[in-house]
Amino acid sequence: MTTKIKTGIIGATGMVGQRFITLLENHPWFEVTYLAASESSAGKKYSDAVKNRWHMQGDIPSYAKDLVVEDAGKFDQAIGKCSLVFTAVSMSKEDVKLLETGYASRGFAVVSANSAFRLTADVPALIPEINFEHINIIPVQQKNNGWQKGFIAVKPNCSVQSYMIPLHALRLKGYNFKRLIITTLQGLSGAGYPGPSAFDLIDNIVPLISGEEEKSEVEPQKIFGEIKDGRIVHDTSFEISAHCTRVPVIDGHTACVSVEFEGKKPTEAEILECWKNYSSVPQELKLPSAPEKAIIYREEPDRPQPRKDRDQGNGMSVSVGRLRPCNVFDYRFVGLSHNTIRGAAGGAVLMAELLAAKGFIKG
Amino acid sequence: MTTKIKTGIIGATGMVGQRFITLLENHPWFEVTYLAASESSAGKKYSDAVKNRWHMQGDIPSYAKDLVVEDAGKFDQAIGKCSLVFTAVSMSKEDVKLLETGYASRGFAVVSANSAFRLTADVPALIPEINFEHINIIPVQQKNNGWQKGFIAVKPNCSVQSYMIPLHALRLKGYNFKRLIITTLQGLSGAGYPGPSAFDLIDNIVPLISGEEEKSEVEPQKIFGEIKDGRIVHDTSFEISAHCTRVPVIDGHTACVSVEFEGKKPTEAEILECWKNYSSVPQELKLPSAPEKAIIYREEPDRPQPRKDRDQGNGMSVSVGRLRPCNVFDYRFVGLSHNTIRGAAGGAVLMAELLAAKGFIKG
Amino acid sequence: MTTKIKTGIIGATGMVGQRFITLLENHPWFEVTYLAASESSAGKKYSDAVKNRWHMQGDIPSYAKDLVVEDAGKFDQAIGKCSLVFTAVSMSKEDVKLLETGYASRGFAVVSANSAFRLTADVPALIPEINFEHINIIPVQQKNNGWQKGFIAVKPNCSVQSYMIPLHALRLKGYNFKRLIITTLQGLSGAGYPGPSAFDLIDNIVPLISGEEEKSEVEPQKIFGEIKDGRIVHDTSFEISAHCTRVPVIDGHTACVSVEFEGKKPTEAEILECWKNYSSVPQELKLPSAPEKAIIYREEPDRPQPRKDRDQGNGMSVSVGRLRPCNVFDYRFVGLSHNTIRGAAGGAVLMAELLAAKGFIKG
Amino acid sequence: MTTKIKTGIIGATGMVGQRFITLLENHPWFEVTYLAASESSAGKKYSDAVKNRWHMQGDIPSYAKDLVVEDAGKFDQAIGKCSLVFTAVSMSKEDVKLLETGYASRGFAVVSANSAFRLTADVPALIPEINFEHINIIPVQQKNNGWQKGFIAVKPNCSVQSYMIPLHALRLKGYNFKRLIITTLQGLSGAGYPGPSAFDLIDNIVPLISGEEEKSEVEPQKIFGEIKDGRIVHDTSFEISAHCTRVPVIDGHTACVSVEFEGKKPTEAEILECWKNYSSVPQELKLPSAPEKAIIYREEPDRPQPRKDRDQGNGMSVSVGRLRPCNVFDYRFVGLSHNTIRGAAGGAVLMAELLAAKGFIKG
Repeated sequence: MTTKIKTGIIGATGMVGQRFITLLENHPWFEVTYLAASESSAGKKYSDAVKNRWHMQGDIPSYAKDLVVEDAGKFDQAIGKCSLVFTAVSMSKEDVKLLETGYASRGFAVVSANSAFRLTADVPALIPEINFEHINIIPVQQKNNGWQKGFIAVKPNCSVQSYMIPLHALRLKGYNFKRLIITTLQGLSGAGYPGPSAFDLIDNIVPLISGEEEKSEVEPQKIFGEIKDGRIVHDTSFEISAHCTRVPVIDGHTACVSVEFEGKKPTEAEILECWKNYSSVPQELKLPSAPEKAIIYREEPDRPQPRKDRDQGNGMSVSVGRLRPCNVFDYRFVGLSHNTIRGAAGGAVLMAELLAAKGFIKG
Repeated sequence: MTTKIKTGIIGATGMVGQRFITLLENHPWFEVTYLAASESSAGKKYSDAVKNRWHMQGDIPSYAKDLVVEDAGKFDQAIGKCSLVFTAVSMSKEDVKLLETGYASRGFAVVSANSAFRLTADVPALIPEINFEHINIIPVQQKNNGWQKGFIAVKPNCSVQSYMIPLHALRLKGYNFKRLIITTLQGLSGAGYPGPSAFDLIDNIVPLISGEEEKSEVEPQKIFGEIKDGRIVHDTSFEISAHCTRVPVIDGHTACVSVEFEGKKPTEAEILECWKNYSSVPQELKLPSAPEKAIIYREEPDRPQPRKDRDQGNGMSVSVGRLRPCNVFDYRFVGLSHNTIRGAAGGAVLMAELLAAKGFIKG
Repeated sequence: MTTKIKTGIIGATGMVGQRFITLLENHPWFEVTYLAASESSAGKKYSDAVKNRWHMQGDIPSYAKDLVVEDAGKFDQAIGKCSLVFTAVSMSKEDVKLLETGYASRGFAVVSANSAFRLTADVPALIPEINFEHINIIPVQQKNNGWQKGFIAVKPNCSVQSYMIPLHALRLKGYNFKRLIITTLQGLSGAGYPGPSAFDLIDNIVPLISGEEEKSEVEPQKIFGEIKDGRIVHDTSFEISAHCTRVPVIDGHTACVSVEFEGKKPTEAEILECWKNYSSVPQELKLPSAPEKAIIYREEPDRPQPRKDRDQGNGMSVSVGRLRPCNVFDYRFVGLSHNTIRGAAGGAVLMAELLAAKGFIKG
Repeated sequence: MTTKIKTGIIGATGMVGQRFITLLENHPWFEVTYLAASESSAGKKYSDAVKNRWHMQGDIPSYAKDLVVEDAGKFDQAIGKCSLVFTAVSMSKEDVKLLETGYASRGFAVVSANSAFRLTADVPALIPEINFEHINIIPVQQKNNGWQKGFIAVKPNCSVQSYMIPLHALRLKGYNFKRLIITTLQGLSGAGYPGPSAFDLIDNIVPLISGEEEKSEVEPQKIFGEIKDGRIVHDTSFEISAHCTRVPVIDGHTACVSVEFEGKKPTEAEILECWKNYSSVPQELKLPSAPEKAIIYREEPDRPQPRKDRDQGNGMSVSVGRLRPCNVFDYRFVGLSHNTIRGAAGGAVLMAELLAAKGFIKG
């Protein structure tokens, strides 16, 4: 790319918004030129808007400090200032839909970290390694809505990456999972700030993350689905049961997975081989945020662990370990991914890179 | 009982030993008259032996402070000083066997918190609410070993109480579980002191507890087994897959459980009814440590939680919550029990109470 | 007392209010007959009002479950239903003043866990062991306000008990402290719920508790002051510098104290003797909540520690340790007290007991 | 430098040793060519020697994986393989002295993270920003010991950097501190692995770090001392009282500081000016590990915080905040530094860079 794509961040002051600010510093393809947040932040310099509320390590990147934050609800103000917007806002589902439709209808490529459109049949929910082909629903979406250029693509729930990517590696080789029972031990950064109370997470865990189980049981069926008759049809050949718990960990979602296969069953050696050799479209296209290895298998008996492994591949690799037979299903393993990088902002940037590489976003 | 049963604690200086010291203060049936530990503690007053290493809340009970600690390996010294011994030692499996056999062969009732004999066919592994009838193997054990009076009974692994007791309540009513997939989030006190490093449990969890999964997959088959031809025969009508993880929690093991039934399946209302009405032999016998309610169902959507619920019923009740359908099996729920009370010292005391009430231990 | 004093809890649904509910279960002198909270809770049964928000260990005491919560702002509704009210509300300072004056002017004895009136010259701020004599300002307060029977007494800031009580023990024997430099490491329960974010207290500490340093530097001067000319005159013979930090601890405030004396300086042995023998009016009057030992000195080199020592004396004892010379001042030590028991609800109950014993509160 | 200095790490498998391994990856001046550890690791490849015990984030740097670990006690084996050794071992003080003397007497430049020689009068204990001139004691040390080329230089205790560097900035401008009372809240990584037990640091803090207070009270007097008559004479014009506590933080030591000046007292503005403009010899020499800003003042009222600020300047900057008047002394502030980077391995590397730049270490 000779000129960078002008990029906006909608919800720039929140936890995921701040992660976007950090990840897009010195991005080779995207240049952040537009920041928007709630009305109360509008008109302030970004450094003032997040004053005393900057939660990333290190300082606010200097490129962002003096950008003036706009009102996220005033879509027209963004026109001419960027062509791609990342969205990560705290709003009701209905308000998110109005917001994202507002931008898409005005010609913006909307890459969303929100959940509102995840189950909409003509909106792709992308894990670029897995369902890159779902970007082909975008022309249908545009036609359905009468949009010329704008569109919406969404990032799936943050808790599914750690096992969906390893399972995709197996499925690619013809090993089809049929039943999954999963317990996640999830870090808290994804809940925004202030998020969970320390009162609930010191000498304690919380065995509920409201709404999370429902999302993580259905979204994978869409991710592994296929485009048919102008809609993404879910793959219901497998079923997932997910228990989602909150643990005292800042970043990183760990999943304990039991998997049953249908048809051909791999040996342990075959599974390890699949993971070792796994590479997909983001790696082949050498997308800037694609980790060299999307899956890293750890040989240590007590890994992966969130604090020690979440930053692998700049937070974009999934770490896997403890592959062993399951007494009840076929195999068990532990997966781990960084929830605000691979599972949120980083995953969204990778999606945008895929869309740009495929010509869906232009400068 | 008119006179109390003289009682020893073998391994009195360790974490579980200290819990025994605390739980047996003012016990109506048992009077601690004998303490033993490793050779290095022998000859010291108990308060000196645990100096700077007392880990229970509150002070050392005054009854124990001045008791002189004996060498655990010198069995003969205990003769005449007690008839019941609780054991909780840190030794190799072989050494535990020598130790416990040493006491049993000299006529002591040995109630063990160690794992060495858990799978031995003539040694009962008791959760008194569930398999109280297994005490009837004791005469066989005595005969097998040529012991007149002494015997060994063991407490099962600390991580299974939180789901085995709720499942027993269902099985009592004819609802037979067939397949279980479980992930435990376990507190650290059971690992003794110093136990896990803080380096591994701050902003982190560890997805491995060495040996724990194997124990928790086989011991329940023994607990639900029956005595046949002079041995406890495992019930292999069900299978368990357990993922055991360590979380930054002091006390309390939480289990996320998916269960599939065989034959008659209960409704949610029937399950709740079973749990609400559950009462078993320890309750009927009004054993001193038996909680009035062995199962407490919590209606709050985010409970049970370890810090908030572990002390229910003086740490002897199991707290259960989040009963809901499972996408893959029949139902899911969350169970919680206190690992060093119900799951270790308290469970062992309850066993001893059952054995005393049934005449196996005499003063 | 033949009949119990009818008692209200204003702010009954908050964290400190819940602690009052728990501490007053089976209280020998006080019977809780009245609960009030914000308008949104008014009209609900207490168990419904705190549904899913009960933060104490164990269940809601059964006496409280069915009490109907009233609107805290409607003072007249309380008339006839109680004569003593404990207050612990989340409001602006001005609103607290209106609330507490509202109750006092209607004849209620108001014992407050709030800070609004702590520096008012005719309102006693009591640590009953130290400044019990300050209750004699109450008739002045009543006269100043034209109140017949009602009055206001307040509990000082939760962070000062751990060192003020030990220093009082020395002052009683003529050892006058002159300069104090203190750093507190404070638990989070006092901040209410949700209170501090887990994001700020995992793998982290926060070196600021807003407003806390100012309070803890001036309130001790009032506590050690004396009544003169109808007002409590601060003792400015000593100065305090307090650094207040928040640490990942649920309950318990730890203080690292350096103290310089004026005039006669005690030896280490004399200090330990003062602490060992310390007893004051609450102990002499055998007030129900008075700990037998207000000060417990720990010999272990690494104590007191919050989780291990906060519950001493049912949370009413102050634990002290590490007495040693200071390179810069005279001595150093570490003090610890339970912030929501001794430092809040328990301290307030002890105040009320003192006031009742002295005839200021009648049934 | 045209060729890199061949460098050894003695104690390469420990926590600080691993930090050296990480920090020296791609170092422009030093090339790690020699690793040594205890006898039990000798002969193994480094990746095998730390198998399942690698505690740094990310993988073992590839340069180190295949290096064979030597026995630290066999000094002669290192001859010809390196000229500089960093030492960080777990041994008795006497054994450390034998070890470091062993290397120095054979001609190695020994840069030590151990404490054994910190108070030896002819061994410099360097914080390069402060007492760079103390390197001039080295020829005296060599003469005293009859060493031609080898020498020993040591890194001071990890807990003093966070306040000594800010105080140095003031002293440079003529503001001399006289009395300091400090409480530190220290992270646990410096204690090695396994280090503190999680049992002691969940819902808890420990108000003792054995030996730490003594070190941090005397070492600064040496650091600020001067070479006189062939020895480093301590500056006793100031006194320090340090309370050292352990908190549940992985990396980062926080200090709450009260300081009294002698003579000219700065205004707050003058202090901030000193900190803002602070630059010293490491910055002027552009040493590779020198942070651009050795002191970063944070304006937020609740900073610095360990997790959020420890990595500033690649862990080599000291973060300072909360400058305010002290009720008892003159000023208070909060300082923070990374204990295993600035306070250990990173500080030692910076020392070695200074020594190399000044010609004391040659390739």
